[in-house]
Amino acid sequence: MEFKTIEGGVCAAKGFKASGVYCGIKENPTKKNDIAMVVSDVMCNTAGVYTQNKVKGAPVIVTKKNLEKSGGKAKAIIVNSKNANTCNADGEEKANEMCRLTAKALGIKPEEVIVASTGVIGQVLPIEPIVKAVPQLAEKLSYTGNIEAATAIMTTDTVKKEYAVEFEIGGKTCRMGGMAKGSGMIHPNMATTLNFITTDCAVSVPMLQKALSEIVKITYNCLSVDGDQSTNDTCMLMSDGLAQNPEITAEGADFDTFKAALYQVMANLTRMLAKDGEGATKLLTCICSNAPDLDTAIIVAKSVIRSPLFKCAMFGSDANWGRVLCAIGYAEADFDINKVDVDLGSRAGKIAVCRNGAGVDFSEDEAKKILTEDEIEIYISLNQGNAQATAWGCDLTYDYVKINGDYRS
Amino acid sequence: MEFKTIEGGVCAAKGFKASGVYCGIKENPTKKNDIAMVVSDVMCNTAGVYTQNKVKGAPVIVTKKNLEKSGGKAKAIIVNSKNANTCNADGEEKANEMCRLTAKALGIKPEEVIVASTGVIGQVLPIEPIVKAVPQLAEKLSYTGNIEAATAIMTTDTVKKEYAVEFEIGGKTCRMGGMAKGSGMIHPNMATTLNFITTDCAVSVPMLQKALSEIVKITYNCLSVDGDQSTNDTCMLMSDGLAQNPEITAEGADFDTFKAALYQVMANLTRMLAKDGEGATKLLTCICSNAPDLDTAIIVAKSVIRSPLFKCAMFGSDANWGRVLCAIGYAEADFDINKVDVDLGSRAGKIAVCRNGAGVDFSEDEAKKILTEDEIEIYISLNQGNAQATAWGCDLTYDYVKINGDYRS
Repeated sequence: MEFKTIEGGVCAAKGFKASGVYCGIKENPTKKNDIAMVVSDVMCNTAGVYTQNKVKGAPVIVTKKNLEKSGGKAKAIIVNSKNANTCNADGEEKANEMCRLTAKALGIKPEEVIVASTGVIGQVLPIEPIVKAVPQLAEKLSYTGNIEAATAIMTTDTVKKEYAVEFEIGGKTCRMGGMAKGSGMIHPNMATTLNFITTDCAVSVPMLQKALSEIVKITYNCLSVDGDQSTNDTCMLMSDGLAQNPEITAEGADFDTFKAALYQVMANLTRMLAKDGEGATKLLTCICSNAPDLDTAIIVAKSVIRSPLFKCAMFGSDANWGRVLCAIGYAEADFDINKVDVDLGSRAGKIAVCRNGAGVDFSEDEAKKILTEDEIEIYISLNQGNAQATAWGCDLTYDYVKINGDYRS
Repeated sequence: MEFKTIEGGVCAAKGFKASGVYCGIKENPTKKNDIAMVVSDVMCNTAGVYTQNKVKGAPVIVTKKNLEKSGGKAKAIIVNSKNANTCNADGEEKANEMCRLTAKALGIKPEEVIVASTGVIGQVLPIEPIVKAVPQLAEKLSYTGNIEAATAIMTTDTVKKEYAVEFEIGGKTCRMGGMAKGSGMIHPNMATTLNFITTDCAVSVPMLQKALSEIVKITYNCLSVDGDQSTNDTCMLMSDGLAQNPEITAEGADFDTFKAALYQVMANLTRMLAKDGEGATKLLTCICSNAPDLDTAIIVAKSVIRSPLFKCAMFGSDANWGRVLCAIGYAEADFDINKVDVDLGSRAGKIAVCRNGAGVDFSEDEAKKILTEDEIEIYISLNQGNAQATAWGCDLTYDYVKINGDYRS
């Protein structure tokens, strides 16, 4: 299925406004935006997936409660960076306060607000800057505010992440777009970091949740920067139905089109997150094909993407394929290692490095040329089935260590 | 139980000789030893644990077959560094050849030889240097050859690892000692890297295996340098019985003493391996106590030790305890996160950083002083049981990235 890529990020879909401002949650001489708001003109059906970490950020707990109370309906998102509001005794109180402030400014109910926070864990969230910022955010809301918002959710991210597509359902033009943040502490399980996706395509709450859970599994959950699963992972999908297509309430061709659009948005955001991994110089994309089943393909591709040794070898442009085999070997899945083939590729070419689980001769010069590129693909064929999955990651570099050696300071 | 620490490493026990030489398996201007032999004067009962990686080094496969054939009896070890003899089409042939060469030089059977290799994966092992070296090794065997042997098994290790103790069983003085190698690709599952332990304490093959499996679980398997599980992990325990104690053939006080001695040797070697982790500047010891059961304690302690973000924070001497909580939170075990306490300590002092899952005020100056030391302890109390486990690891540094960015060159 082909989709038209469009501008507009989280505001690409009809009826969604956004804004972002700097409020000083943490001293910041650059005065980069640190709080954002996204609001729909009408009530939205909403689905979410959240971190599986036992330590859950207070905003995650509050958002889940709100959506339970509202029956999956929401109108607004309030989200700050620079402080995760996690492991704080007063965390839920503060997260609820953020919802109340937003609801008041917009004239809606607190349970119709999605709240999210990202940043350092275990430091009390200062509420005063937020009290001041919320009315400003409401004031500034605009149908072209997506960049202000996408910038506000960045932490150690070096670029903002937005993606949007246009597609057709039931003769109506639909749009879907999203913004994401995340750079370190990325090894999602059910969802990663912060991701907000909006669409004007009409979809019922249960089908929205079904689509989100299915696509998260093969996109965000196939991403690993460092193997550390965040406490605040949140992925929200909001549908306001303003495209006026007949609401999708069951499986079928329309639902498949919707899921394909969602894959397009989420896979591209995932790729952006991987490429902007903390300290990364290279995007690594691992495609595991001919696997006995989807789960095996995912497990194998993620195992390679996660291996610190392989990530270091890629930083050094070293075709150390033994480390790929090693990581395939400790993947917790059931398959025959002696049938495995491995190729390495990039826009500079592609070479075979392993056949039937054993090394084959290759030109080190050609390998070096391929691996010096900034986007590397690792092709693994298990040769024992038809399933395929892709995982995204990045190399492990001096800068990852530097960034995380003094994050709090 | 108190044990007397003694010198002698793998030769500390009565009847064990060793040797090591440089044979040039790989070009090496420093001519560091790269092949070692350990031989017992009499036949040994032998137990082993091996990597769980699907990709198994050829020496692992051959050693397992040999011990099956000989019924757990062995007299000699032949082990090389600089090449893992893994993922090679002719790997088993070469590993068998190493056993045949050793058997011929010593006048024993090939199946009485334990063979091991460590180094780069997927490069053909040159056999000629080994053909020349084996007779030299046999010639040089000595009761004080432990250091020559311990040096020969080093790869990126910066120090040799040896440890030995003396204890008493049945009125007889027994000795047990070992040598180990390993610096990167360390995240053992059943055994780590290469470890050879010898004892003159008489123990039957089944009880030897029982003791080894039990102690591996709480020592080597609680070690993580980088989360990468090697293909060649091997841990061997040989008993020649020359201490002349009544052979241990069942559980009881003697077996408990033997296991305590084994813990002493293996825990100390584990600690040495962690401290010499690739690029490490700090040893991290995580003690998880008051857990509902042993497995939970192990899983939680290992989860913290493995977290790249926490490891970077320790490199930067940053008391970023939120990362400890985060790693506890994604540990795959069942417990209540809201009861968890965390303290950080070193020889410079100890501070509380978290109580009941939430942060507590502490002096950043005092924390910095504590974390600037080179041996850091992380104390986690789950406060929901009586089980305890320790895990060992190290910080993640620029040098880890450097070493592994150009390992093959």
